[in-house]
Amino acid sequence: MNLNPTLKTKLNISDDSDFSIHNIPFGIYSDSNVKHHVCSAIGEYIIDLFELESADVFDLNREVFTKEFLNEFIELGKPITNKVRAKIQELLSADNSVLIKDEKLFHSVFKKQNAVKMLMPVKVGDYTDFYSSIDHATNIGTMIRDPKNALMPNWKHLPVGYHGRASSITVSGTNFHRPKGQQKPADVELPVYGPSKLLDIELETAFIIGKSTQMGESITTENADDYIFGMVLFNDWSARDIQTWEYIPLGPFLAKNFASTVSPWVVTLEALEPFRTEGYVQEPKVLPYLEYKGIKNLDIKLDVFLKPQNGQDNKICSSNYKYMYWTMEQQLAHHTVNGCNVNVGDMMASGTISGPDPSEFGSMMELTWRGTKPIKLNDGTERKFVNDFDTITIKGYCLKDNIRVGFGECVATLLPAK
Amino acid sequence: MNLNPTLKTKLNISDDSDFSIHNIPFGIYSDSNVKHHVCSAIGEYIIDLFELESADVFDLNREVFTKEFLNEFIELGKPITNKVRAKIQELLSADNSVLIKDEKLFHSVFKKQNAVKMLMPVKVGDYTDFYSSIDHATNIGTMIRDPKNALMPNWKHLPVGYHGRASSITVSGTNFHRPKGQQKPADVELPVYGPSKLLDIELETAFIIGKSTQMGESITTENADDYIFGMVLFNDWSARDIQTWEYIPLGPFLAKNFASTVSPWVVTLEALEPFRTEGYVQEPKVLPYLEYKGIKNLDIKLDVFLKPQNGQDNKICSSNYKYMYWTMEQQLAHHTVNGCNVNVGDMMASGTISGPDPSEFGSMMELTWRGTKPIKLNDGTERKFVNDFDTITIKGYCLKDNIRVGFGECVATLLPAK
Repeated sequence: MNLNPTLKTKLNISDDSDFSIHNIPFGIYSDSNVKHHVCSAIGEYIIDLFELESADVFDLNREVFTKEFLNEFIELGKPITNKVRAKIQELLSADNSVLIKDEKLFHSVFKKQNAVKMLMPVKVGDYTDFYSSIDHATNIGTMIRDPKNALMPNWKHLPVGYHGRASSITVSGTNFHRPKGQQKPADVELPVYGPSKLLDIELETAFIIGKSTQMGESITTENADDYIFGMVLFNDWSARDIQTWEYIPLGPFLAKNFASTVSPWVVTLEALEPFRTEGYVQEPKVLPYLEYKGIKNLDIKLDVFLKPQNGQDNKICSSNYKYMYWTMEQQLAHHTVNGCNVNVGDMMASGTISGPDPSEFGSMMELTWRGTKPIKLNDGTERKFVNDFDTITIKGYCLKDNIRVGFGECVATLLPAK
Repeated sequence: MNLNPTLKTKLNISDDSDFSIHNIPFGIYSDSNVKHHVCSAIGEYIIDLFELESADVFDLNREVFTKEFLNEFIELGKPITNKVRAKIQELLSADNSVLIKDEKLFHSVFKKQNAVKMLMPVKVGDYTDFYSSIDHATNIGTMIRDPKNALMPNWKHLPVGYHGRASSITVSGTNFHRPKGQQKPADVELPVYGPSKLLDIELETAFIIGKSTQMGESITTENADDYIFGMVLFNDWSARDIQTWEYIPLGPFLAKNFASTVSPWVVTLEALEPFRTEGYVQEPKVLPYLEYKGIKNLDIKLDVFLKPQNGQDNKICSSNYKYMYWTMEQQLAHHTVNGCNVNVGDMMASGTISGPDPSEFGSMMELTWRGTKPIKLNDGTERKFVNDFDTITIKGYCLKDNIRVGFGECVATLLPAK
């Protein structure tokens, strides 16, 4: 499948764009004329699907492309959403498509991405965060407990996860204030109140549920892919000092629920299929409901950049989704084994994705080993954790046989405490 | 304020009804003619507010009473919803109201509660569960850790809470299947998979957010009541064997997210105001953002009943909301101190409400002390935890100076594992 040469020239599409014809992600945009429309992307442009449907190419009620979130589009089901994606690819590749023949349509459909505002892609009903990278769990366990017993006894038997806050998940570009709260430094007797001093990032991805279940239903590893619409990049901002004091025994709460950032483009599972790769050999053997067939991990290159105020980007981490110990299919089978129902738009994040090499650690806590090895930036300053006005950008993409499918960016700036 | 004698006779309203003229809760009902209407309650009747508004008594757009959930009604704000409640009370007490003069209206407005189906009252965006009863936390800590260090070091400094699953919160009357999942009995080396054997209840209440905030905003203990619309009864069903194996280090997950049950009537905070009572003296002193003025605890009598299949109700617990160590106002101030935003319809549960006496323990785990002291039922059988086909009912009411304001029932039957 190749982009039509006329369109390629007209839209000036670079060969190394995240948004190749092989991608065709979905999102929601807004501009001075449009409150919210469903869109896709090609190169540096968005494709307004409401405008495109004026040519009746999808045979759908156009209303579905005017909604505030993708949920109703996703609820049409994969047979339809996949057909929409395939149709867009066809229109972008064919020699005689309406996009070439109809100049007026062309101009209403394509808009420069930098001229529109991308909005939160889905209305998140429930948000779950897993803890599925073995290198991350081992690093954290080594630091806060015992290197010899870094992983808890349950870790290799089930994909550990917990419920998080949906209301404070925001789209890339949404800045937020350093959270305040209780901390108890080791050297004082009583807890103190104030701005978090140990503000961290967590490099994650999240998948979005594409099909709802009823309470009492379980999803198997075999049919899990039918329930996964697509993926986004995810920054699970974490206040380590608040977390340390609050999290025993019921888990992270205020340390995480002040802000999480997602990338605006939902890359479909179908676009990611060519980049499947072998996962970990899981030893000890998992229980039968967690076993799976086939190749289910994904080779997604992930980079994290830190940019000081008025400074330049510093790449502080290069990791890869392939380091996940538990697959999304296993996470979803586990999440629903007890009959827990899922809904379209639910978001399930990976947990911090760290690789084995120190340059692949997905959080400042690991990168600086709890602040003991500060990161040197190219402006000469150092970071143990995130400073006020630092901008964190996560990028992610798949590349194989010269085919590139990317996520774009997930970016936010930490503002000072209010 | 007294019920009009004509209406009292006509509707045969008992003096000890939960739904006195002092209550006037809100809910959503359905019957063969009505898909979903907002309603209130008096005695054994519901009051259809959409029908009542045909007489233009509230000066509102009737559409708000046709919604699937109360959220849009609540979003009108307390100045309006309180006026609606006061107007209903006025119509029920006045001598010459439309409900007395207009026989046709009377018949369209009042329906027997047992002839309609009560639906889930709100669409829950985010659900939080606290852990705020000192007797409960002490009991659990004593059982699973050390009686001398039953409370974790943070417990008296902050209202411990965690995020739970919103999707599996269902309205009273919704039965569900015993969940399956991983457990690791102490006497085996590897985890096993199967139905939970230690299925428990948790006697709780929950409050419902009545006013949204933006990310970055905090609610103070002083203005917290403006953000609390009302309360419901809440059964936080818990699979203890699944919980024990999964919850370290990130908290309860599959042990809780298979089902939670709420009562259908939201009793407004205004209806509960006359039943405020002194709370605990908090020692050590809490941080300034958690201090509060005035009397903020509530005297709500809470009973739990267990009914075996084809059997009769056994009262297994009598507790009281007044045993809460942390108030709702403190919970909300803590939840938002970091800028976490809340939305109308969010539900925040108390955690198990246990009193100091063993008859006041709010879970089977405590009542039977981990199964070591089974409860004897009136049919001669015993219970360590909940059996298949057992029905659990929570009831709750306030009573003072012959004024009664109650919640009705929160009931569900445990069905066998699928």
